[in-house]
Parts: sequence; structure tokens; C-alpha cells
Amino acid sequence: MPQVIIVMGSATDRPTAQKAEKILDKFNISFETFVASAHRTPDRVVEIVRNSNAEIFIALAGLSAALPGVVAAHTLKPVIGVPCASSSSPANLDSLLSVVQMPPGVPVAGVGIGRGENAALLAARILGISNQEINQSLKDYSKELEQKTLDSN
Amino acid sequence: MPQVIIVMGSATDRPTAQKAEKILDKFNISFETFVASAHRTPDRVVEIVRNSNAEIFIALAGLSAALPGVVAAHTLKPVIGVPCASSSSPANLDSLLSVVQMPPGVPVAGVGIGRGENAALLAARILGISNQEINQSLKDYSKELEQKTLDSN
Amino acid sequence: MPQVIIVMGSATDRPTAQKAEKILDKFNISFETFVASAHRTPDRVVEIVRNSNAEIFIALAGLSAALPGVVAAHTLKPVIGVPCASSSSPANLDSLLSVVQMPPGVPVAGVGIGRGENAALLAARILGISNQEINQSLKDYSKELEQKTLDSN
Amino acid sequence: MPQVIIVMGSATDRPTAQKAEKILDKFNISFETFVASAHRTPDRVVEIVRNSNAEIFIALAGLSAALPGVVAAHTLKPVIGVPCASSSSPANLDSLLSVVQMPPGVPVAGVGIGRGENAALLAARILGISNQEINQSLKDYSKELEQKTLDSN
Amino acid sequence: MPQVIIVMGSATDRPTAQKAEKILDKFNISFETFVASAHRTPDRVVEIVRNSNAEIFIALAGLSAALPGVVAAHTLKPVIGVPCASSSSPANLDSLLSVVQMPPGVPVAGVGIGRGENAALLAARILGISNQEINQSLKDYSKELEQKTLDSN
Amino acid sequence: MPQVIIVMGSATDRPTAQKAEKILDKFNISFETFVASAHRTPDRVVEIVRNSNAEIFIALAGLSAALPGVVAAHTLKPVIGVPCASSSSPANLDSLLSVVQMPPGVPVAGVGIGRGENAALLAARILGISNQEINQSLKDYSKELEQKTLDSN
Amino acid sequence: MPQVIIVMGSATDRPTAQKAEKILDKFNISFETFVASAHRTPDRVVEIVRNSNAEIFIALAGLSAALPGVVAAHTLKPVIGVPCASSSSPANLDSLLSVVQMPPGVPVAGVGIGRGENAALLAARILGISNQEINQSLKDYSKELEQKTLDSN
Amino acid sequence: MPQVIIVMGSATDRPTAQKAEKILDKFNISFETFVASAHRTPDRVVEIVRNSNAEIFIALAGLSAALPGVVAAHTLKPVIGVPCASSSSPANLDSLLSVVQMPPGVPVAGVGIGRGENAALLAARILGISNQEINQSLKDYSKELEQKTLDSN
Repeated sequence: MPQVIIVMGSATDRPTAQKAEKILDKFNISFETFVASAHRTPDRVVEIVRNSNAEIFIALAGLSAALPGVVAAHTLKPVIGVPCASSSSPANLDSLLSVVQMPPGVPVAGVGIGRGENAALLAARILGISNQEINQSLKDYSKELEQKTLDSN
Repeated sequence: MPQVIIVMGSATDRPTAQKAEKILDKFNISFETFVASAHRTPDRVVEIVRNSNAEIFIALAGLSAALPGVVAAHTLKPVIGVPCASSSSPANLDSLLSVVQMPPGVPVAGVGIGRGENAALLAARILGISNQEINQSLKDYSKELEQKTLDSN
Repeated sequence: MPQVIIVMGSATDRPTAQKAEKILDKFNISFETFVASAHRTPDRVVEIVRNSNAEIFIALAGLSAALPGVVAAHTLKPVIGVPCASSSSPANLDSLLSVVQMPPGVPVAGVGIGRGENAALLAARILGISNQEINQSLKDYSKELEQKTLDSN
Repeated sequence: MPQVIIVMGSATDRPTAQKAEKILDKFNISFETFVASAHRTPDRVVEIVRNSNAEIFIALAGLSAALPGVVAAHTLKPVIGVPCASSSSPANLDSLLSVVQMPPGVPVAGVGIGRGENAALLAARILGISNQEINQSLKDYSKELEQKTLDSN
Repeated sequence: MPQVIIVMGSATDRPTAQKAEKILDKFNISFETFVASAHRTPDRVVEIVRNSNAEIFIALAGLSAALPGVVAAHTLKPVIGVPCASSSSPANLDSLLSVVQMPPGVPVAGVGIGRGENAALLAARILGISNQEINQSLKDYSKELEQKTLDSN
Repeated sequence: MPQVIIVMGSATDRPTAQKAEKILDKFNISFETFVASAHRTPDRVVEIVRNSNAEIFIALAGLSAALPGVVAAHTLKPVIGVPCASSSSPANLDSLLSVVQMPPGVPVAGVGIGRGENAALLAARILGISNQEINQSLKDYSKELEQKTLDSN
Repeated sequence: MPQVIIVMGSATDRPTAQKAEKILDKFNISFETFVASAHRTPDRVVEIVRNSNAEIFIALAGLSAALPGVVAAHTLKPVIGVPCASSSSPANLDSLLSVVQMPPGVPVAGVGIGRGENAALLAARILGISNQEINQSLKDYSKELEQKTLDSN
Repeated sequence: MPQVIIVMGSATDRPTAQKAEKILDKFNISFETFVASAHRTPDRVVEIVRNSNAEIFIALAGLSAALPGVVAAHTLKPVIGVPCASSSSPANLDSLLSVVQMPPGVPVAGVGIGRGENAALLAARILGISNQEINQSLKDYSKELEQKTLDSN
């Protein structure tokens, strides 16, 4: 049973999903990744969400990015939404606003455009509340980032 | 069996829905109206769509307006999406872009922000293709509009 | 007599028009395609619309995209508007807003930026209301899309 | 025969049209004002433009503001476009971009949102090229504005 | 020791904070609320974050909303950011983008503009992963919302 | 004495200026072109405007495009403003809004982003009011455009 | 000889100017305030700038806010630009972008929309570099702000 | 002791920082440059600001650009903010608005997107108030720019 389920709305979102997977791997957080679209395979999305015991969902989508909100409608677990860039999109405001501007009652935790790594780090922070090992990994990663920034001087 | 199903995501969208209802009434197009949210009552949305033999769906929603796209994912009938205004919305671009910027494969027919009457008129144009009576009503309405514009001189 | 008329405002919109043509071909929906501009050949636009018995119009245009609205002003058939991208455009909001933000009384069914395929699929959904064969093609296409998404896992 | 034709797309644009009329009156520039919509009364728009010997057209419209461009498509006289504000508009970018972002070949002279007075002043500048009296009025008006600004100290 | 710390950047954000407090109260989640600004009292922000053993932080701010990001820089616990509306703000895009567009490495969980209730519900979903009582409250609340939506028919 | 003065704010705007020059040449409208910046050579701008007897000014600028407005402040002749694209610009809204959103009293005739050709065609329409030859050239050009559009079928 | 010159483009910007004046008064920084428009009284703007020995200029303007840039073109002293809100403005992006997006070579120090107080505080920070008394006033003011924020708990 | 401290939020902002460095070098203004992030190395940012006796700070950052505001929160010296472009950014409005839209009380002097040179020129104007040599360099540079613009004719 994976701790995190990653769902991307389209195979073209895979590079963003992989940024998340890389962090989860590094933090030894188990995950499973699916391509499932709120618009093309809506039943499959519900099936993935309902059959899962995952503690966190990460949903990635571009354009009219309904996927994170739809996932959040079918689970009471935290859902992290990642708006993905698209070439024909008006300044990527479509996916960003679709992910973030959820109506009252059904929250999605929005991260920045294309920020798969931050979605995974947010998942790690959530799991790290009660998991000392993940918390330690976050500390190490944070130090690493800090050092990398200092070293770029 | 109504010809048109109107679904609004929230009771606050009712004034926009009523603009649509007023036109459908005038054109003798039967309809049924529901409040059902893609985020708060997702199963109800699917149930409404699947159990219906309506020829056209009109879906209204504000903010991250997933409803029209979700309806379009569960039917192969034409779905007309109406983005609704919301006070905390960034220039209403959230609902507008959520409705219009659908991914390839699942079309929504987007009309302007708060344009319930145009959603109904579009439904009338669609039904009017094979219904002479509705087509005549459209001609009459069009003349009426024309005359009203000329009279405002 | 074609079922669908495609009008593009400029020959540069042809790649978007071809996405529509490809779907219509696949669905055995007859169509005829024109280049005619609301600004450079306004009389030709009116002539195309008035002389046609098509059941649906698809109008594509970029920048200040008046074409879909002008077509809708001269017919009572449903008009599908496709905003086209343009390099000097402010985030493509010009064509998108010109297509979607129609005044009350004259509806245009707006699809996403560059979404020629969705314009054709919307036309298919409209024609499919009373045409069992097109409806079946939509089901097949929908299954195809679903399978393609599932297969990308 | 009026020197300037003012066409507004809707009677709701009248306050903006009146700002233009006030300036034209002050400058003794003859004008005639019409309500005619590119979408609701397209033939009337063409009729007004074709039957007129006016030297300049001022066209006002809100939302998807096709009117200035359509007027410009039917005359070779200069056309001044005034985007009008609308409550359901996304930051009034719809009318502004529809007016200004004309395709190559058919120019519209765009002024600011709701700037009826500037449309009339631009008309005066154009007519003033060969009309000494109007030119003198512009000088007087310019001095007046200057003095009013200085006096507000 | 409260489970959630709410920090608002200005006392003018209190109405949004209260939407969060109301939900946390309802769910029996303990919290403490502070006014502390990333710009006017930066040391106090750090002090609040460092001295706290809270499991989740909710940070609210308007305009250039640095607060959520600054809180996230000083803790490894999950930080939920709430962009607040401001009258002189360009369509509230300033606070929204400041909250959501965090650089790689330091995630903030952004919710919609003024959506204090969703921030609290997201906190409840996070705590509910390992707290059966909160999870049950979420179920009850979700049913309540569902019923309220159904009842508005 | 040239009929039209073209002023560009920077040598990088030259490709846009050349689109205007090409049309003016074609229409036998005399012109003179200057590089002069409202910000780097403000006195030179005033000198060019004050020393000229041109009938029309075309001013091109990018970013915070003050040039058209500054030219309009120093002449009572019509001023056509052309917003130019810039790579670091937010969707080119900076130059577009600077050109178009002039305060009451000082009009600029704004054309679309990078639309040098339309600036020249607008100048031709203005001069064509009282110049039969230019008017005839406009008719010919208009026919040419129309034919080119028809031929692209 | 005042240390700071405040120039506002229109008397309607006075409330924003007064926010600046209030801070300058409090800090005992001498100033003189003018209404002078880059578009309606361009020579007066140049005269004010050239005749002044002020150390800092604060320029306020709305819409196409050329004033700060024009002031900066006529002095080598630091110029602080304050974009002012306007009702017909597209989300106040016109004045904001006009003030901030200056071309290379001529800097303007932009503050937020309507932020007259911040313009004055920035002036105080600049003068405080070499003026111990102003620097002390800044410290006091900063403490005051800090205390006020702490007290709002 | 350098007169100016440059802090960039990420090593990817270095090209923009170098535009500033080039101008400072040319003007013989001493400076020191750091990479330090408000989000990844917040303590380092405070340390740099607190340990410095610099007269001016230039802070560069992209995305949710908190750095300039955070620097301004820890010093009473003038802080110049440079929003940096980022590929996944919505039209660079995130960094621009984060830099400029500071709350009342803590000013940042915002320059245009990627305008490192203007940040340095603004610093020179500030230092030039009381430094005759820098003032002379500004005059020379200004002449140079003017001449370069004139020469491009």
C-alpha cells in the first residue's frame, strides 16, 4: 500500500510527475503513479481514489485542470494540486486558477506551476508530522538546499 | 422527459440559471433544473447526467468551475458551460478559463461570464436544427432583439 | 450540401482548421472549408453564411476575433468559435475573450484556444442528438480516448 | 451631412457616447448618433456606414466589441473605437482587446476604456488637419485643460 | 500546545482568519492565532514559528504576501497559505501569485483567495490522516455540505 | 515637408516602423523617420514634434511606452501609437496599456501590438479624407487584400 | 528649498499624494506639491523639474502613467513613481506597468498602487543614508509600526 | 565596506545581477554580491543585511519574489527590488507583483522585469545626491545614452 498516489491528467504531464517521484524516492516514501483524466477517464479517477488507502494524493493537470478538485471530491485525505504548463494556455492562468480557486468546503493544496518537486516536499512535510524518519530526511534535504545556495556564492 | 437539463454548482448561481430558464420557457423548451456540485456532490452530478435522456446540458459554475467539464465527461450530448462571477475571483478569469480551456477530446461549449440567456439561446439553436417551431421562435426572438435595438434610437 | 461549414479568418489559421477537418472526416460528417475574414472580406462572410444550408458553423479567428460573432449574427444555426493563437497577442486573451464574451442575444459556443478538434467534436455531439451513426462514432471515439489514456500507464 | 457618425453597440453605451457628443458640440463638429449592433442588427450597421458620407466614424461597444472592426471593414474612412466597460467583463480586457487588436489591413484607432471624450478629440484633430476653425478650437480647448490643471494647484 | 498556528499578516485579514477558526473550533482542533507581519515584525514571525510545536501553520496575507513563504522557510511542518483580497490589488493576483508560486524546495499549500475555511479543512484532512476523530468530523462535515447542496434544490 | 513623421522610441522598434514605411511608400505618402526616446532624449522628441509641419505622427514604443502620449502632448495633430513587443514584458500589456489608456483630453489613436502596417493604413485613411489619390490607393489596397484572402481558398 | 518635490498628474490623485505628505510632515522632511500633467501640461512638468534643487521627486499618476518616467527623463535625482487607481482601468495594470516597466537607462523607483505613504518612506530611507535625524525618525516609525502590529493581537 | 549590497535569490538570477554589477563598476561604486534566498537560506539573508553597513541594497528574485521585501524588513536603508523572469511564471506577473505590491510601512523601490541595469542606475542616482563624482558619472552616462539614441538615426 503506497503512502502517496500520484495521478496525472495526461501523459504529457509526466515530466512534472517525475519531479515529484524523484523526491519521494529520495525520501523513501512509497508511491504509485497513474495517468487518469477527469475528462477522458472520469470513472477510472474515482476508482483509483476509492480503492486506495494512500494517505496523500498528488494530482497534476494542465488547461482546465479539474483533476485535483475531482480527486478532492472523492476522498477526505489531503490532495495536492499541481498546475501544469501548456503551450496554448493564456499565461498558464487556466491550470493555476483551476487548481487553486476551489469553492468553500473542498480544499486542494495548490503548489506552483510545474512544481512537482514541491508537491512531493509538501507530502513529505505532511507525513513528517508523525514520521520521524521523513522529518529527518526533510532536515537533511533542507540543509542540502541551504548548502547548495551558499556554495553558489 | 425534459429536453434540457440545467445544473448549477451552487445555489448562488441561481440568478444566472434563471436567465436561461426564462428563455427556455419563452421558447417552450422543456427543462429541469438541479443544484449539484462537482466538488460537494460529485455522485449526484453523475447520477443526474446518467439518468437523463435530455438532449442538451447547461452547466453553470463559478471559481474553479469544474462542473461543465465533469458533465461533459459523463455524456456525449452537447454541454453548454456558463462561467459565473464570484466576488473573490481574479477578474472572473478562474471560472471563464475553467469552462473554456477544456483538453482535447472532451468539448464544452463556453458562453460569456454570467450569460445564462445565451446558454439557453445556444440550446435553442441546437434544437432548432431539427425543430421547426423552435427555429421559428428564434426568428421571432431575433426580430424582437433587432427591433428593440432599432427602437432605442 | 455539407452538414458543417468551417470558416477561418486567415489562411494562417489552417492548422487549427485541419484539426477540425480530421475529426469530421473520421466521423463521416460532410463539411466545406472557407477562408473569409470579418474584416477583409465581410461581404463574402455574409454570402457564405446566407447561401448555406449547413446545420452548424465552425468559425476560427485570431487577435480581435470578430468572425464567430459575425457569423452568429447572420444565421440562427449554432456557431462554434475557435480562438486562434497569435504571436503578438497578449497571452491569447484577445481572441479568447472576443470569441467567448458575446453580448446577450447572440450566442457563440466557444472552445479553447487552438482547439479545432474540440470544435468538431462539439459539432458531432450536436448532430449526434438525432443521428444514431454519429452518436455511435462518438461512443467509439470516446472509448478510444479512454483506452489511449489507460494505455499510457 | 454630418462630419462624424457615432455608432454605439447598445443603448447602455450612451453615457460614453454622450462624452463624445459634448465635445463635438463644443467644437461645432456636426454628427449623428445611432444605436446599431454588429451582432443584433448587422445589416443596419452596414447600411449606416454605406449610406453615409461622414468623414469619420466613432464606434463604441462593450464585451466582445466587434462593432469598430466591422465598421472599419465597410468604410475606408478613419474609424475610432471606444471600448466600453461592462460589469461581467474580466477587467474590461474583452472590449479593450477586441477594439485594439485588429488584424493587419483593417485599422481601428483605439482610445481608452470609456474615453468617449478622447474619441471626439481625436476626430477633431483629424478634421483639424485641414479645418482652421477646428484647429483653433483644439488650441483653445488645450489651453483650457492646461489652465484647469494649473489652477488645481 | 495548539495543533495549528494561524498567523495573519495584518489585522485587516481577521475576517478570513475567522473563517478558519470557525472550522477548527467545530472540528475540536486546538489553535492559536497571531497577527505578525513578514515585513513589519519579521523577528516576531520567526519567534512564533520556532517556539511552536504546532503540527500545521496557516498563514494569511494580502498584497505581496510573503508571510506563508517566510513561515515555510522557518519550519518543516506543512504551511497552508491563504491569499487575502485587497482593494488596491490588481485583481488579487498579487497575493495569489505570491502565495502559490514558491520556488523549488520550499512548498506552501495554497488555497483560494480569502478561503480561510478551506485552509482549516485542509488542516483537518492532514491531521485526519492519523486522527480518527477528526476524520469522522470530516465525514460528517462532508455529509452536511452534501445535504445542504441537495436541499437547495 | 513630409506628411507623416514616424518616431520610434528605440532602434529595436525598427522592424515595426518598417512595416509602416512600406505601406506609406506604396501609397506615395511622404514621411520622415526618427529614433527619439521620451525617456533618453526627451528634448529631441519635443524638437521633432515642434519643428514639424507633418499632418500625422506615428509613434512606436515598447515597455512603458510613454512616447505616443508625449508626442500627443506637444502637437494637436493626430498621433497614432503603436505598442511594440518586448521579451521581458508581461504579455505585452505594458506597452499596449501605456499607449491606449490615455487620460481625458489628450487622445492617442492606438493600434495593435506590433501593427506598424495598420498605423500607416490609419494615416492613409486620415489623409484620404481630403486626398482623392490616397483614397483610391486605399480602395486598390483593400481590393488586393480581399482578393488575396479569396485566393487563399 | 524643499528636499522633496511631489508631482501628481491630476487633482484626483490628491488623496494618494496626501498619504505621502503626511509621512514627510511627520519626518520633518520639507516638500512642495504640484499638480502637473505629462500630457496636459508637459512644459510645466519640465519647468518644475528643471527649476528645482530637490533631492528626490515623487511622481503620482493613473492610467497611462507617463509622469514618473518623464520626470526621470529630466533629472538625474531619484524619482519615485506611484501608480494611482482609476475606475475604468483594467485591474490597475495600466498605471502599475507604466510606472515600473521603464526602459534601460532611465530608472523609476516604483511603489505599489496607491502607496503614497511608501513613496514618502522610501524618500526618507534615501535621505536617511546621510541624515541621522531622518534615520532616527525611521527607527521610531518602524518601532511604532511593529508595536501597532503586536498590539493588534 | 561596499556602498551597495546585491543579493540574488538564486544563482539563476546572475545574468540580471551582472547587468547591475557592470553599471556599478563603470560608476566606481563599490559593491558585494551574494546568493541568498528568503526561502532556502532565510537566516543568511538576515545576517547579510544586519552585518552590512552598505548604503543601498539591490535584491533580485523570481517567482514569489519575497527577497526584496524581506531585506527591506531588516534594514532602514533603501532597498531596490528587481523582479526576474522565470519560464513557468504567468507572464512574469508573480515576481513583478511580489516586488512592487509591498504593504504600507515597508517600501521597496521596484524596477522593471530583469532590469538589473536600472537598479544600479537608481542606486547611482541615490548616491549621487551627495556624491559629486557619481553625479558626474550619471551626467556622462546620460549623455552617452542620448548620443547613442541620436546616432541610431
